[in-house]
This record gives sequence, structure tokens and C-alpha cells, in this order.
Amino acid sequence: MHILIAPDSFKDSLGAPAVAVALAKGIRKSLPKAGIRTVPMADGGEGTVESIIEATGGRIIQLPVLDPLMREVSSFYGITGDGSTAVIEMAAASGLELLDPEERDPWITSTYGTGQLVRHALDQGCRKIVLGIGGSATNDAGTGMARALGVRFLDGEGAEVTEGGGSLGDIRVIRLEGLDPRIGKTRIRVACDVTNPLTGLQGASHVYGPQKGADPEKVKNLDANLTFFAELVREQLSMEISRVPGAGAAGGLGAGLMVFLGGTLVKGFDLVAETVGLEAEIQWADLVITGEGRMDRQTRFGKTPFGVAQMAKDHGKAVIGIAGTLEQGAEEFYRSGFDVIIPIQERPVSLEEALHNAAALLERTGDRLARCMRLGIRLAGEESDINAHRV
Amino acid sequence: MHILIAPDSFKDSLGAPAVAVALAKGIRKSLPKAGIRTVPMADGGEGTVESIIEATGGRIIQLPVLDPLMREVSSFYGITGDGSTAVIEMAAASGLELLDPEERDPWITSTYGTGQLVRHALDQGCRKIVLGIGGSATNDAGTGMARALGVRFLDGEGAEVTEGGGSLGDIRVIRLEGLDPRIGKTRIRVACDVTNPLTGLQGASHVYGPQKGADPEKVKNLDANLTFFAELVREQLSMEISRVPGAGAAGGLGAGLMVFLGGTLVKGFDLVAETVGLEAEIQWADLVITGEGRMDRQTRFGKTPFGVAQMAKDHGKAVIGIAGTLEQGAEEFYRSGFDVIIPIQERPVSLEEALHNAAALLERTGDRLARCMRLGIRLAGEESDINAHRV
Repeated sequence: MHILIAPDSFKDSLGAPAVAVALAKGIRKSLPKAGIRTVPMADGGEGTVESIIEATGGRIIQLPVLDPLMREVSSFYGITGDGSTAVIEMAAASGLELLDPEERDPWITSTYGTGQLVRHALDQGCRKIVLGIGGSATNDAGTGMARALGVRFLDGEGAEVTEGGGSLGDIRVIRLEGLDPRIGKTRIRVACDVTNPLTGLQGASHVYGPQKGADPEKVKNLDANLTFFAELVREQLSMEISRVPGAGAAGGLGAGLMVFLGGTLVKGFDLVAETVGLEAEIQWADLVITGEGRMDRQTRFGKTPFGVAQMAKDHGKAVIGIAGTLEQGAEEFYRSGFDVIIPIQERPVSLEEALHNAAALLERTGDRLARCMRLGIRLAGEESDINAHRV
Repeated sequence: MHILIAPDSFKDSLGAPAVAVALAKGIRKSLPKAGIRTVPMADGGEGTVESIIEATGGRIIQLPVLDPLMREVSSFYGITGDGSTAVIEMAAASGLELLDPEERDPWITSTYGTGQLVRHALDQGCRKIVLGIGGSATNDAGTGMARALGVRFLDGEGAEVTEGGGSLGDIRVIRLEGLDPRIGKTRIRVACDVTNPLTGLQGASHVYGPQKGADPEKVKNLDANLTFFAELVREQLSMEISRVPGAGAAGGLGAGLMVFLGGTLVKGFDLVAETVGLEAEIQWADLVITGEGRMDRQTRFGKTPFGVAQMAKDHGKAVIGIAGTLEQGAEEFYRSGFDVIIPIQERPVSLEEALHNAAALLERTGDRLARCMRLGIRLAGEESDINAHRV
């Protein structure tokens, strides 16, 4: 029997590689002859680099970059096992988590560090870049990132404007001549599951500005700046970006990646799945196991398990979901292709204890699952024995 | 496929019949063609009447009796479907739970009500009686019970001594002539899992007296009274009871049942299993499912699931345990014959919430279990298809 284990991370508890390893360990205990492969998954958000690196046998590159407030910070990205593709999480250089709550201010925060990661990946010879852009601290339309790669944003006097979403309104001229020429030969794809436009009430500033530290007045001004910036891009670069779905992701970094790096936005799951070669692994498998710390039908959860289940179903494979927290409505999962969803909890406990024990719980869940299937196999065997005798 | 569901109750949450029904409902959802039988189980303690009545298609008899303080109280016992056997829980007439904490006093509490239940069962024609004796409020060596059936306990002046363990020291003469003659034709078996002797530091008074409301002084005096009573029984009835294992159960009711009613002590699980005909049901089944609210290796838990598993294993059947709380060390269960133990929790929750939701959790667990086995069956089928093609 071939079993593919392709879970997302269990948030606040275990990364996807550790989840996969724990499940595999448990399953192997009771189905020692099963062929097991692990392909840790992600949805383009936190943990995407870790999962892809693990799944492809790649490596992590650590390097100092400038954080959202242009201070040096230790960051990282990954390169896949074949060396072709860099995998970058923008949050590792320009993320909200890098700032103390009182430091958060999208008026001045910059995506410059994300640009530095891209540049470093180009230096390593990567000509494919996968970018996860969740968790940003910024609202600069990716101008900081672009500047780190050679684009210049000049004010009325020909001087560089300062970093941050607050200075977009000062830009008068966008100069592309200095843009790193390797960008033109590089395929840049961006994991993006939001469809917010750059500007307006559904745009970057209004929807995500407040959680990044902007008060209502600042939100209004940030939105006005993005509107002005989109106008400038239209005039000087002949590109219309303000209404493009996803342009408003990560404080307009979605727009900046399209405009300056020729990036394309792709659903996070699809991008990760392609990068790790999920489909081939699913074809190999008889049974596919996926899961996530919390499984429900909310927008914020379940993207990866649902994606894995859908792909597995498309190939006629059996699918099991494993969940730390299974919200009511598993029927919804069953309609979506899952054959069964198995929660890992073993008794009434606090969330804290459950998070702390996830590895052991997952291993024992794997063992239980294998035991149940072994039972089914055994009972099927007895049944066919009986039928054989009847014949 | 034949599936037997034979769980214990989930304490503080659901009786064994409800547990069995919920599991059956869930399993039927995903294995609609399976033959399912439910045999709610018990270990001779609380819930024994309910389970046996349900398992045998019997009925509950409700009647007023005297409680441990000789006040009228509504009580009950059961009669099995074939009408042959009465099933009595002594706690329903003489239990600690019938008293407020400040009323608890084994110096005066009596098993009289338990004797009334026995007499009523004799009136109904029952000539087999199964007695569960857990949860007693008494330390009267079953004298109250015996008195309700016609035995007389007289003091030096020929007067009846008062009820309770405190007056055993006043007895000078035990008169059996008035004992209900039907007792001689009745097979009385007592579910008893404790081995305490009647007297001494491991005896009824020292071990169980304190939880029934006796202070250290009273414990000493109660033990002295039981010692005196055993001496009297030896002299006048030629029976040696003070060191018999189990004689100290239920405040010496174990001894009283042996002495006055010719009762025999049997392990609770064995007695219930025999009364419900468990072995025949297990022979019918391909798969046996049992369980309990809490499963661990403690003395207080797991008797029923372990008993069911052992019997199923003896017949070579597959066994699954279902638990509300699965304590660490499931490996212990696996060594004891369980093929798998499945906890019912779906996420981190409080014990209170878990207890409240047990029925729904059990139903969904049954569904999950059926789905896992169906998967195993399906995968086994694919494998044998593959093998068939190879041939």
C-alpha cells in the first residue's frame, strides 16, 4: 500500500514537516510494510519555505536584510533541491511580526528587505522565484522591494523619496533603467489568495491598514497615496493596476510585483503544489493523508487540506484529513472528497496542552488510523474468505 | 459484516444503552449493510440494572422501600426479558447517594431497603437474583437486609436490636426461623470486585467507613462490632466469615448475603456478561466494539472494556475500544487484545463540554470508525485487484 502524507502545518504548534513525520511514524508502527512518502504542504503563508525545502530536499539560506523600519535583521529564504527555484516569504524580511506593536506604522514601513531577498536569490542563480506575501507590515505598493532591485522613485526635485506608504504621494518620476536585468529572465510567481484591489474601500489600506497600525485618518491618506501611485504607474509605465484583483495584497506588494518584476499572482495552494510536485506523488499513492491544526469551512482555514483532497479525488484516490481541532460540520468535508476526517485529541484538554502535545498526539493518531485500516483489511479478508467458501 | 457494540456507560454523561445506540447510529451511516447488535454492558456497579434490562429486553420495577435511615424512598430493580432473573443495585435502596452528606452515619444506616427489593423480586417469581453492591451507605453486615427477609437479631432481653452497624454489638441471638423460605430455592449471585475481608485494617469499617461518614473513633467501634458479629455467626450459625475475601464489601453486606441468603460472590463483569448472554453475541460478531467514558489501567476504570476485549480475543474476534478520555498508555490496551482504541474528542474542550456532548461525539466517532474501516476494505480490495491482475 502506498501512502502519501501531505499536511499543512498545525499552527502555533508544529510545522508541516514535523506533522508529516509524526503521522508517518505512527502509521509505520501498525502498517510496517506500507510505502510511505511525506510531502509537507503549505498555502503560501507562514511555513511555505520550510515545507517546500523539506519536500524538495532543498536548503535554507540565511542572510541579514533590512526590516520594515530599515534596521538590520536576520532573515532567510529557501532554494529547492534542484537549485532552480527560490522560495521567499515576504514576512521573513518585511513582516508585521518583526515589529513590536508600538512600532507598527505602514506610513513608514518598507518592503526593501523583501527586494534584498529576491536579489540574493538572483545572485545564487535562481531564475524561478516563488513568493509568499502574507503577514506584511507595509503599505508601500512594493516600492521598497523595487528600490532594492534598482528601481528609483524620485520627487519633484529629482531626489529619492523616503521609504514607506506615506511618501508615495511625493513621487513624481519612476525610473526603471536601474532595475536588475536578471529580473527580465526570471519567472516570478506570487502565492496570493486574496482578491483585494489596490485602492478603495476593499483596497489594501482600508482592509489591512488598521491591523498594521494605521488609524482612520492615516488609512484615508494611505489609500489616497496608493491611488496617486496607481495613476503615476498608468501615466509613466502604461499599466493599469488599481482594480486588478490581488493588487492590494500585502499593502500593494501584489501590485508592485506585477508592475516591477513581471510577477503573476497564483493561488497559494496551486503554486506550492506545483513547486513540490504534489500531483506526481498523488498518482503514486493509494491513500492520501492531509490535515491542518484546525479544519473548518472558514476562509482562513482548510485551504491546503481541501486542495490536497480535491487533487486526490481527481485521481480517484482515498483521502483522509487529520485535524487538531475539527469544527462541527465534518459533513461538509465529506461532500468535498474526504473519506474521513480524524481528530487527534484523546481527552478533554486545554488548547494550550493540545498544542504542546501535538507531535505525540499525531503519532498516536497515525497508529490508530493504521490499526483501523488494518482491521478493515482483515475484515474484508474474512469476508472474502467466507465468500470463497460459499463458492 | 457483523458488529457487536457492547460498551460500559460513560460515567456522568451517558448510560451504556445510549452509548451503544449513538455508536450504532454513526456506524450505520457509513456501513449501512453491516449487521449491528447492541449489548449494553456494566461491571456490577451503577448502571447494571439499566444495561441488563436493555440487553435482555427486560423491564424496570419501581417501588417504595426504606432508605438507609428507614425513610420511604422511591426505588427500583429490573427483571430480565425472560422473567427469570431479578437485577438489583443495592445503592438504589441503601446507597450513599440517597443521603445528604451530613446525614451519612454508618452507625445507624441500614440495608433494610435492599432486603425489601429482594423480597419484592421473590414475589414476582424470580428465582435468580443478581445483586450489585457498590455505593453503599451502610456498615451493618447486611443485617438490615436479612431482617427485611425475616431474620431476627435479638438483644439480651429478647428484643430486636435497632438498625445499623452501631447495634451489632448488642446482638445476642440470631434467629433464622422466620427467613423467607423462597430464599432456599433462589440462586443469589453478587457482583463483587473487591476482596476486602469483613474485619481488620483491610476490612469494611477501616477501608470504607470514613467515606460513609465515620470518624476514626467510630471506625474502630464499627470494626469491633463486625468482629463481634462474625464471632456470633461462627458460634450460632457455624460459619466462618471474617476472613472471606469480599465479605467486607458494602459494609459487610457481602458477608450477610453469603450467610443469610446463600449468595455467592462473582466478579461483576463475569456476572453481567453471563446474564446478558455476551459470549453468544460475541460468537455471532466479526467485530466487537466496547468502551467506557474513561479508559486507563487504573483499578477503577476499564473493567468492562477489558473484559469484553478478553472474551472477544478468546474467540479470535477483532476488538475496538471507544473512550471519552483515553489516558496515556494505550499500548497497554493493545497488549491486552484491543486492535485499536479510539477517543471521541474532536478538539480541545473542557470536561464539562465533553460530557455534555457525548452522544453527538459518539455518533460521529462511529461514523469515522466505519469510514476508516470502509477505507481499509476498499484498499484491500484494490490490492487484491492488483494481485488478480498480476495473476
